[in-house]
Amino acid sequence: MKKFEEKTISNNVLFEGKIISLQVEDVELPNGKTSKREIIKHPGAVCVIAKTEDNKLIMVEQYRKALERSIVEIPAGKLEPGEMPEVTAERELEEETGYGCSELTHLISFYTSPGFADELVHVYKAEGLYKIEDAHDTDEDEFVELLEVTLEEAEEMVLDQRIYDAKTAYAVQYLRLEQLRKLT
Amino acid sequence: MKKFEEKTISNNVLFEGKIISLQVEDVELPNGKTSKREIIKHPGAVCVIAKTEDNKLIMVEQYRKALERSIVEIPAGKLEPGEMPEVTAERELEEETGYGCSELTHLISFYTSPGFADELVHVYKAEGLYKIEDAHDTDEDEFVELLEVTLEEAEEMVLDQRIYDAKTAYAVQYLRLEQLRKLT
Repeated sequence: MKKFEEKTISNNVLFEGKIISLQVEDVELPNGKTSKREIIKHPGAVCVIAKTEDNKLIMVEQYRKALERSIVEIPAGKLEPGEMPEVTAERELEEETGYGCSELTHLISFYTSPGFADELVHVYKAEGLYKIEDAHDTDEDEFVELLEVTLEEAEEMVLDQRIYDAKTAYAVQYLRLEQLRKLT
Repeated sequence: MKKFEEKTISNNVLFEGKIISLQVEDVELPNGKTSKREIIKHPGAVCVIAKTEDNKLIMVEQYRKALERSIVEIPAGKLEPGEMPEVTAERELEEETGYGCSELTHLISFYTSPGFADELVHVYKAEGLYKIEDAHDTDEDEFVELLEVTLEEAEEMVLDQRIYDAKTAYAVQYLRLEQLRKLT
């Protein structure tokens, strides 16, 4: 796991924000030469593949300032300091959708942009959904619209680029795979 | 696509690097309040799902400084300024693996981290692979090891967290889905 290791010569933290921080590292390459690496540190995040009783996928539409547009995603959110990912998953599901779940299963974790960021996303599947009457509101500066769509509708939204991010594309593929596995 | 739009009040570019830049924007939220957004600008990237004639997936192991470890990924690389993604895809396939391809199909594009970055990854499938005798070397500061693995081996590597990033997890799922579709 250390193959071709790049040793840190020096590390300059140039920005520490509310969510991400930026550092530029001088590194020594395996051939002895030096190079620079621009690296974003991120606390990590979770996302939740949640299906209702009538087999619809729960999604949220929200504006993404980095993209200057809104896209449709599965519920997701950042880890708070020291928070266990499954706790974040339950919290974000409730905050963004008003649903609780009786079962939460970890499916996979993956880095989103290993070339420049250490953001690790933990993917969960939520089953046994139920509406929470007094669900916690979303974050004060978070505006989301809830959608419940069939798998076929979700696949259409991938083609239309309303679903346009890696974790949600993965989720749609996961559900289709799950369905095909039941048939074979 | 502008639902819940956040209007830019001011935009401070804090860092412009070789690969990424960082800006912090003051934005006006849909409820009239203000907030800050930390945003990474990235030129975009491609990745290539390439299978050999004997049905093995071509992968590269490389050290990722952001993660402080090496992981196994499908061939990938950043867009050069003004470069068409399919050109990048052919170039990266050749540079990282020594393979050319007779057919290149765009499968999907997705944002990797829409919460803070505009990196868009274009996913291609390469078919009709052939070894290029005088293939261009990899980048001077890029050290990669070539692997050719079966789908089953790739799925094991997902479980072992040697495959540990979103695009490669997507690729492995894509190939399993393709195989199951042939069976049903």
